[in-house]
Amino acid sequence: MSKLRLKISMSLDGFVAGPNQSVENPLGIGGMRIHEWAFALEAWRAQHGLEGGEVNESAQVMKESVENLGATIMGRNMFGGHPGPWDPNKPWNGWWGEDPPYHHPVFVLTHHPRETLVLQGGNSFTFVTDGIESALEQARAAAGGRNVTIGGGASTIQQYLRAGLVDEMQLHVPAVLLGSGERVFDNLDGATRRFTCTELVASPTVAHYTYVRR
Amino acid sequence: MSKLRLKISMSLDGFVAGPNQSVENPLGIGGMRIHEWAFALEAWRAQHGLEGGEVNESAQVMKESVENLGATIMGRNMFGGHPGPWDPNKPWNGWWGEDPPYHHPVFVLTHHPRETLVLQGGNSFTFVTDGIESALEQARAAAGGRNVTIGGGASTIQQYLRAGLVDEMQLHVPAVLLGSGERVFDNLDGATRRFTCTELVASPTVAHYTYVRR
Repeated sequence: MSKLRLKISMSLDGFVAGPNQSVENPLGIGGMRIHEWAFALEAWRAQHGLEGGEVNESAQVMKESVENLGATIMGRNMFGGHPGPWDPNKPWNGWWGEDPPYHHPVFVLTHHPRETLVLQGGNSFTFVTDGIESALEQARAAAGGRNVTIGGGASTIQQYLRAGLVDEMQLHVPAVLLGSGERVFDNLDGATRRFTCTELVASPTVAHYTYVRR
Repeated sequence: MSKLRLKISMSLDGFVAGPNQSVENPLGIGGMRIHEWAFALEAWRAQHGLEGGEVNESAQVMKESVENLGATIMGRNMFGGHPGPWDPNKPWNGWWGEDPPYHHPVFVLTHHPRETLVLQGGNSFTFVTDGIESALEQARAAAGGRNVTIGGGASTIQQYLRAGLVDEMQLHVPAVLLGSGERVFDNLDGATRRFTCTELVASPTVAHYTYVRR
Protein backbone atom coordinates (compact mmCIF):
# COMPACT_ATOMS: atom_id res chain seq x y z
CA MET A 1 0.00 0.00 0.00
CA SER A 2 1.25 3.43 -0.96
CA LYS A 3 2.13 5.55 2.10
CA LEU A 4 1.96 9.26 2.71
CA ARG A 5 5.36 10.33 3.99
CA LEU A 6 6.21 13.71 5.39
CA LYS A 7 9.72 15.16 5.11
CA ILE A 8 10.45 18.27 7.10
CA SER A 9 13.67 20.21 7.60
CA MET A 10 13.19 22.25 10.76
CA SER A 11 15.51 24.49 12.76
CA LEU A 12 16.21 23.34 16.31
CA ASP A 13 13.98 26.15 17.58
CA GLY A 14 11.11 24.83 15.47
CA PHE A 15 10.97 26.88 12.28
CA VAL A 16 10.49 25.50 8.75
CA ALA A 17 10.92 28.93 7.15
CA GLY A 18 12.32 32.27 8.22
CA PRO A 19 10.29 35.46 8.62
CA ASN A 20 9.26 37.70 5.68
CA GLN A 21 8.89 35.13 2.90
CA SER A 22 8.83 36.68 -0.58
CA VAL A 23 9.53 35.88 -4.22
CA GLU A 24 13.09 37.09 -3.68
CA ASN A 25 13.40 35.12 -0.46
CA PRO A 26 11.07 32.09 -0.77
CA LEU A 27 12.20 30.51 2.48
CA GLY A 28 12.18 33.78 4.42
CA ILE A 29 15.16 35.48 6.03
CA GLY A 30 17.72 32.86 7.00
CA GLY A 31 15.41 30.04 5.93
CA MET A 32 17.94 28.55 3.53
CA ARG A 33 20.13 27.69 6.54
CA ILE A 34 17.60 25.00 7.50
CA HIS A 35 18.42 23.12 4.29
CA GLU A 36 22.18 23.67 4.07
CA TRP A 37 22.92 20.28 5.68
CA ALA A 38 21.53 18.61 2.55
CA PHE A 39 23.30 20.62 -0.15
CA ALA A 40 26.70 19.10 0.66
CA LEU A 41 25.46 15.51 0.33
CA GLU A 42 26.19 13.34 -2.68
CA ALA A 43 22.56 12.12 -2.58
CA TRP A 44 21.18 15.66 -2.85
CA ARG A 45 23.67 16.68 -5.52
CA ALA A 46 22.87 13.59 -7.63
CA GLN A 47 19.13 14.37 -7.44
CA HIS A 48 19.92 17.84 -8.77
CA GLY A 49 22.23 16.63 -11.55
CA LEU A 50 25.48 17.50 -9.75
CA GLU A 51 28.52 15.30 -9.19
CA GLY A 52 30.52 14.67 -6.02
CA GLY A 53 29.48 15.44 -2.46
CA GLU A 54 29.68 14.01 1.04
CA VAL A 55 28.64 10.55 2.19
CA ASN A 56 27.94 10.47 5.95
CA GLU A 57 25.22 9.40 8.42
CA SER A 58 22.76 11.64 6.59
CA ALA A 59 23.37 10.01 3.22
CA GLN A 60 21.51 6.77 3.99
CA VAL A 61 18.58 8.71 5.46
CA MET A 62 18.42 10.93 2.39
CA LYS A 63 18.67 7.91 0.08
CA GLU A 64 15.78 6.13 1.81
CA SER A 65 13.68 9.27 1.80
CA VAL A 66 13.66 9.51 -2.00
CA GLU A 67 13.39 5.76 -2.64
CA ASN A 68 10.11 4.37 -3.89
CA LEU A 69 8.62 7.82 -4.23
CA GLY A 70 5.96 8.31 -6.92
CA ALA A 71 4.35 11.70 -6.34
CA THR A 72 4.64 14.92 -4.31
CA ILE A 73 1.97 17.19 -2.84
CA MET A 74 2.71 20.83 -2.04
CA GLY A 75 0.89 24.02 -1.11
CA ARG A 76 0.44 26.98 -3.44
CA ASN A 77 2.96 29.06 -1.47
CA MET A 78 5.64 26.42 -1.94
CA PHE A 79 4.98 26.35 -5.68
CA GLY A 80 5.27 30.13 -5.37
CA GLY A 81 4.77 33.05 -7.68
CA HIS A 82 1.95 35.30 -6.60
CA PRO A 83 -1.29 35.08 -4.60
CA GLY A 84 -4.73 34.97 -6.23
CA PRO A 85 -5.75 33.74 -9.72
CA TRP A 86 -3.00 32.58 -12.09
CA ASP A 87 -1.88 35.26 -14.51
CA PRO A 88 -2.04 33.88 -18.11
CA ASN A 89 0.20 36.69 -19.36
CA LYS A 90 2.93 36.09 -16.80
CA PRO A 91 2.82 32.37 -16.15
CA TRP A 92 4.63 31.27 -12.99
CA ASN A 93 6.13 27.80 -13.50
CA GLY A 94 7.71 27.20 -10.10
CA TRP A 95 11.11 28.00 -8.63
CA TRP A 96 12.99 25.16 -10.28
CA GLY A 97 13.49 26.06 -13.96
CA GLU A 98 12.76 23.77 -16.93
CA ASP A 99 13.83 20.53 -15.21
CA PRO A 100 12.68 20.54 -11.54
CA PRO A 101 14.23 18.01 -9.12
CA TYR A 102 11.02 15.98 -8.57
CA HIS A 103 10.99 13.82 -11.73
CA HIS A 104 7.46 12.62 -10.95
CA PRO A 105 3.93 14.11 -10.82
CA VAL A 106 3.47 16.99 -8.36
CA PHE A 107 0.07 18.09 -7.05
CA VAL A 108 -0.32 21.71 -6.00
CA LEU A 109 -3.11 22.71 -3.59
CA THR A 110 -4.71 25.95 -4.76
CA HIS A 111 -8.03 27.79 -4.84
CA HIS A 112 -7.46 28.80 -8.45
CA PRO A 113 -7.90 26.36 -11.38
CA ARG A 114 -5.17 25.99 -13.96
CA GLU A 115 -4.19 23.47 -16.66
CA THR A 116 -1.60 20.88 -15.72
CA LEU A 117 1.92 22.16 -16.35
CA VAL A 118 4.31 19.65 -17.92
CA LEU A 119 8.04 20.38 -17.69
CA GLN A 120 11.14 18.34 -18.57
CA GLY A 121 12.48 15.25 -16.80
CA GLY A 122 9.14 13.63 -15.95
CA ASN A 123 7.96 16.66 -13.97
CA SER A 124 4.30 17.65 -14.10
CA PHE A 125 2.36 20.03 -11.87
CA THR A 126 -1.35 19.38 -11.46
CA PHE A 127 -3.36 22.10 -9.75
CA VAL A 128 -5.93 20.69 -7.31
CA THR A 129 -8.80 22.94 -6.25
CA ASP A 130 -11.03 20.45 -4.39
CA GLY A 131 -9.07 19.86 -1.21
CA ILE A 132 -6.39 17.77 0.45
CA GLU A 133 -8.20 14.38 0.22
CA SER A 134 -8.64 14.83 -3.52
CA ALA A 135 -4.97 15.80 -3.92
CA LEU A 136 -3.91 12.69 -2.00
CA GLU A 137 -6.20 10.46 -4.06
CA GLN A 138 -4.84 11.88 -7.33
CA ALA A 139 -1.26 11.64 -6.08
CA ARG A 140 -1.75 8.00 -5.02
CA ALA A 141 -3.19 7.13 -8.43
CA ALA A 142 -0.29 8.85 -10.19
CA ALA A 143 2.28 7.19 -7.91
CA GLY A 144 1.22 3.73 -9.11
CA GLY A 145 1.76 1.95 -5.79
CA ARG A 146 4.82 3.95 -4.79
CA ASN A 147 4.76 6.40 -1.87
CA VAL A 148 3.53 9.98 -1.85
CA THR A 149 5.37 12.77 -0.06
CA ILE A 150 4.37 16.22 1.13
CA GLY A 151 6.90 18.87 0.16
CA GLY A 152 5.43 21.67 2.31
CA GLY A 153 4.86 24.29 3.44
CA ALA A 154 3.84 24.44 7.06
CA SER A 155 0.14 25.03 6.45
CA THR A 156 -0.16 22.09 4.02
CA ILE A 157 1.69 19.81 6.44
CA GLN A 158 -0.57 20.89 9.33
CA GLN A 159 -3.71 20.20 7.28
CA TYR A 160 -2.62 16.64 6.45
CA LEU A 161 -1.51 15.97 10.03
CA ARG A 162 -4.78 17.24 11.51
CA ALA A 163 -6.74 15.09 9.04
CA GLY A 164 -4.83 12.00 10.24
CA LEU A 165 -3.67 11.18 6.70
CA VAL A 166 0.10 11.05 7.31
CA ASP A 167 1.62 7.55 7.69
CA GLU A 168 5.28 8.43 8.31
CA MET A 169 7.25 11.53 9.24
CA GLN A 170 10.90 12.24 8.73
CA LEU A 171 12.20 15.27 10.61
CA HIS A 172 15.60 16.67 9.71
CA VAL A 173 16.77 18.96 12.51
CA PRO A 174 20.05 20.77 11.83
CA ALA A 175 21.85 22.61 14.62
CA VAL A 176 20.39 25.89 13.38
CA LEU A 177 18.71 28.44 15.67
CA LEU A 178 16.68 30.73 13.42
CA GLY A 179 15.10 32.92 16.11
CA SER A 180 11.81 33.51 14.30
CA GLY A 181 9.78 32.36 11.32
CA GLU A 182 7.07 29.86 10.52
CA ARG A 183 6.44 26.90 12.84
CA VAL A 184 5.08 23.57 11.69
CA PHE A 185 4.32 22.13 15.14
CA ASP A 186 1.52 24.53 16.00
CA ASN A 187 -2.26 24.23 15.89
CA LEU A 188 -2.14 20.45 15.50
CA ASP A 189 -4.86 19.56 18.04
CA GLY A 190 -2.89 16.57 19.32
CA ALA A 191 -2.52 15.08 15.83
CA THR A 192 1.08 13.99 16.53
CA ARG A 193 0.14 11.84 19.56
CA ARG A 194 -0.21 8.67 17.52
CA PHE A 195 3.34 8.80 16.10
CA THR A 196 6.17 6.64 17.44
CA CYS A 197 9.84 7.20 16.71
CA THR A 198 11.43 4.28 14.89
CA GLU A 199 14.87 5.76 14.20
CA LEU A 200 17.12 8.57 15.36
CA VAL A 201 20.51 9.11 13.77
CA ALA A 202 22.76 12.16 13.55
CA SER A 203 25.66 13.49 11.54
CA PRO A 204 27.81 16.28 13.05
CA THR A 205 25.42 18.90 11.63
CA VAL A 206 21.91 17.39 11.62
CA ALA A 207 19.78 14.85 13.49
CA HIS A 208 17.19 12.75 11.63
CA TYR A 209 14.07 11.56 13.46
CA THR A 210 11.78 9.02 11.76
CA TYR A 211 8.22 8.42 13.02
CA VAL A 212 5.44 6.06 12.00
CA ARG A 213 1.79 6.35 12.89
CA ARG A 214 0.65 3.61 15.29
CA MET B 1 36.65 31.93 34.20
CA SER B 2 33.42 30.44 35.47
CA LYS B 3 30.86 29.96 32.68
CA LEU B 4 27.08 30.11 32.69
CA ARG B 5 25.85 26.91 31.07
CA LEU B 6 22.29 26.18 30.09
CA LYS B 7 20.95 22.63 30.03
CA ILE B 8 17.55 22.12 28.45
CA SER B 9 15.58 18.96 27.75
CA MET B 10 13.08 19.87 25.06
CA SER B 11 10.57 17.81 23.08
CA LEU B 12 11.15 17.69 19.32
CA ASP B 13 8.16 20.01 18.86
CA GLY B 14 9.77 22.56 21.18
CA PHE B 15 8.25 22.15 24.62
CA VAL B 16 10.16 22.13 27.93
CA ALA B 17 7.03 21.34 29.96
CA GLY B 18 3.57 20.04 29.20
CA PRO B 19 0.33 21.99 29.64
CA ASN B 20 -1.43 22.48 32.99
CA GLN B 21 1.56 22.51 35.37
CA SER B 22 0.57 21.98 39.01
CA VAL B 23 1.93 20.76 42.35
CA GLU B 24 0.69 17.27 41.43
CA ASN B 25 2.13 17.54 37.93
CA PRO B 26 5.14 19.88 38.15
CA LEU B 27 6.21 19.31 34.54
CA GLY B 28 2.67 19.52 33.18
CA ILE B 29 0.75 16.78 31.38
CA GLY B 30 3.21 14.48 29.64
CA GLY B 31 6.16 16.69 30.61
CA MET B 32 8.02 13.86 32.33
CA ARG B 33 8.41 12.18 28.92
CA ILE B 34 10.89 14.92 27.96
CA HIS B 35 13.25 13.67 30.68
CA GLU B 36 12.79 9.91 30.38
CA TRP B 37 15.87 9.52 28.19
CA ALA B 38 18.01 10.46 31.20
CA PHE B 39 16.45 8.23 33.85
CA ALA B 40 17.84 5.05 32.29
CA LEU B 41 21.43 6.34 32.24
CA GLU B 42 24.05 5.21 34.72
CA ALA B 43 25.23 8.84 35.02
CA TRP B 44 21.76 10.07 36.06
CA ARG B 45 21.19 7.16 38.43
CA ALA B 46 24.57 7.71 40.13
CA GLN B 47 23.74 11.42 40.64
CA HIS B 48 20.53 10.32 42.36
CA GLY B 49 22.18 7.64 44.51
CA LEU B 50 21.05 4.68 42.38
CA GLU B 51 23.15 1.84 40.99
CA GLY B 52 23.26 0.37 37.49
CA GLY B 53 21.95 1.93 34.32
CA GLU B 54 22.84 2.32 30.66
CA VAL B 55 26.06 3.62 29.17
CA ASN B 56 25.55 4.92 25.59
CA GLU B 57 26.21 8.01 23.46
CA SER B 58 24.27 10.11 25.98
CA ALA B 59 26.41 9.02 28.92
CA GLN B 60 29.47 11.08 27.97
CA VAL B 61 27.31 14.14 27.30
CA MET B 62 25.61 13.75 30.67
CA LYS B 63 28.95 13.22 32.43
CA GLU B 64 30.42 16.40 30.92
CA SER B 65 27.31 18.39 31.74
CA VAL B 66 27.68 17.81 35.49
CA GLU B 67 31.49 18.09 35.57
CA ASN B 68 33.02 21.18 37.08
CA LEU B 69 29.64 22.50 38.17
CA GLY B 70 29.58 24.68 41.29
CA ALA B 71 26.13 26.27 41.52
CA THR B 72 22.62 26.20 40.00
CA ILE B 73 20.13 29.00 39.33
CA MET B 74 16.41 28.27 39.00
CA GLY B 75 13.10 30.11 38.87
CA ARG B 76 10.55 30.12 41.66
CA ASN B 77 8.21 27.86 39.67
CA MET B 78 10.89 25.23 39.29
CA PHE B 79 11.55 25.31 43.04
CA GLY B 80 7.78 24.94 43.27
CA GLY B 81 5.26 25.00 46.06
CA HIS B 82 2.85 27.87 45.79
CA PRO B 83 2.73 31.39 44.33
CA GLY B 84 3.06 34.53 46.46
CA PRO B 85 4.84 35.03 49.80
CA TRP B 86 6.40 32.00 51.51
CA ASP B 87 4.12 30.42 54.11
CA PRO B 88 6.05 30.07 57.42
CA ASN B 89 3.47 27.58 58.73
CA LYS B 90 3.68 25.29 55.71
CA PRO B 91 7.27 25.59 54.53
CA TRP B 92 7.85 24.35 50.98
CA ASN B 93 11.37 22.92 50.71
CA GLY B 94 11.41 21.91 47.05
CA TRP B 95 10.45 18.74 45.20
CA TRP B 96 13.52 16.72 46.07
CA GLY B 97 13.22 15.62 49.72
CA GLU B 98 15.94 15.94 52.38
CA ASP B 99 18.87 15.25 50.03
CA PRO B 100 18.28 16.95 46.63
CA PRO B 101 20.40 15.90 43.63
CA TYR B 102 22.30 19.22 43.30
CA HIS B 103 24.93 18.82 46.05
CA HIS B 104 25.97 22.46 45.66
CA PRO B 105 24.45 25.90 46.33
CA VAL B 106 21.23 26.65 44.44
CA PHE B 107 19.92 30.20 43.87
CA VAL B 108 16.16 30.62 43.47
CA LEU B 109 14.78 33.73 41.71
CA THR B 110 11.76 35.02 43.61
CA HIS B 111 9.93 38.23 44.50
CA HIS B 112 9.50 37.07 48.10
CA PRO B 113 12.38 37.14 50.62
CA ARG B 114 13.18 34.05 52.65
CA GLU B 115 16.09 32.76 54.75
CA THR B 116 18.52 30.40 53.01
CA LEU B 117 17.37 26.79 53.28
CA VAL B 118 20.10 24.26 54.06
CA LEU B 119 19.38 20.59 53.35
CA GLN B 120 21.55 17.46 53.41
CA GLY B 121 24.32 16.53 50.99
CA GLY B 122 25.76 20.00 50.43
CA ASN B 123 22.46 21.37 49.16
CA SER B 124 21.49 24.93 50.02
CA PHE B 125 18.77 27.11 48.52
CA THR B 126 19.32 30.87 48.61
CA PHE B 127 16.36 33.04 47.66
CA VAL B 128 17.34 36.00 45.47
CA THR B 129 14.94 38.92 45.23
CA ASP B 130 17.08 41.49 43.40
CA GLY B 131 17.19 40.06 39.89
CA ILE B 132 18.99 37.75 37.51
CA GLU B 133 22.34 39.58 37.49
CA SER B 134 22.49 39.42 41.29
CA ALA B 135 21.63 35.72 41.27
CA LEU B 136 24.40 35.06 38.73
CA GLU B 137 26.91 37.09 40.76
CA GLN B 138 26.05 35.20 43.96
CA ALA B 139 26.11 31.85 42.14
CA ARG B 140 29.53 32.61 40.61
CA ALA B 141 30.92 33.55 44.04
CA ALA B 142 29.51 30.35 45.56
CA ALA B 143 30.81 28.21 42.69
CA GLY B 144 34.42 29.18 43.48
CA GLY B 145 35.65 29.22 39.89
CA ARG B 146 33.54 26.30 38.73
CA ASN B 147 30.66 26.73 36.26
CA VAL B 148 27.12 27.83 37.00
CA THR B 149 24.08 26.21 35.39
CA ILE B 150 20.48 27.28 34.92
CA GLY B 151 18.04 24.54 35.90
CA GLY B 152 14.91 26.21 34.45
CA GLY B 153 12.14 26.88 33.84
CA ALA B 154 11.42 28.45 30.50
CA SER B 155 10.92 32.00 31.76
CA THR B 156 14.20 32.01 33.71
CA ILE B 157 16.08 30.62 30.72
CA GLN B 158 14.56 33.25 28.43
CA GLN B 159 15.53 36.07 30.81
CA TYR B 160 19.18 34.98 30.89
CA LEU B 161 19.29 34.44 27.12
CA ARG B 162 17.79 37.86 26.40
CA ALA B 163 20.27 39.48 28.79
CA GLY B 164 23.15 37.89 26.84
CA LEU B 165 24.53 36.22 29.97
CA VAL B 166 24.60 32.60 28.76
CA ASP B 167 28.00 31.26 27.61
CA GLU B 168 27.06 27.72 26.59
CA MET B 169 23.86 25.82 25.84
CA GLN B 170 23.27 22.11 25.86
CA LEU B 171 19.97 21.05 24.30
CA HIS B 172 18.77 17.50 24.84
CA VAL B 173 16.08 16.71 22.27
CA PRO B 174 14.42 13.32 22.70
CA ALA B 175 12.18 11.88 19.98
CA VAL B 176 9.12 13.05 21.92
CA LEU B 177 6.22 14.98 20.35
CA LEU B 178 4.31 16.57 23.20
CA GLY B 179 1.71 18.48 21.16
CA SER B 180 1.37 21.42 23.53
CA GLY B 181 2.96 23.00 26.59
CA GLU B 182 5.55 25.62 27.41
CA ARG B 183 8.11 26.70 24.80
CA VAL B 184 11.56 27.98 25.62
CA PHE B 185 12.45 29.31 22.15
CA ASP B 186 9.93 32.12 22.12
CA ASN B 187 10.21 35.84 22.78
CA LEU B 188 14.00 35.78 22.56
CA ASP B 189 14.47 38.88 20.39
CA GLY B 190 17.24 37.23 18.37
CA ALA B 191 19.25 36.36 21.49
CA THR B 192 20.25 32.97 20.07
CA ARG B 193 21.89 34.43 16.95
CA ARG B 194 25.33 34.55 18.51
CA PHE B 195 25.47 30.83 19.34
CA THR B 196 27.40 28.31 17.25
CA CYS B 197 26.97 24.56 17.47
CA THR B 198 30.16 22.79 18.55
CA GLU B 199 28.84 19.24 18.90
CA LEU B 200 25.89 17.12 17.84
CA VAL B 201 25.62 13.50 18.96
CA ALA B 202 22.66 11.16 19.29
CA SER B 203 21.69 7.93 21.00
CA PRO B 204 18.71 5.97 19.62
CA THR B 205 16.33 8.04 21.78
CA VAL B 206 17.79 11.54 22.12
CA ALA B 207 20.00 14.02 20.23
CA HIS B 208 22.34 16.35 22.12
CA TYR B 209 23.20 19.74 20.64
CA THR B 210 25.97 21.81 22.27
CA TYR B 211 26.34 25.55 21.51
CA VAL B 212 28.82 28.21 22.58
CA ARG B 213 28.39 31.95 22.32
CA ARG B 214 30.70 33.54 19.78
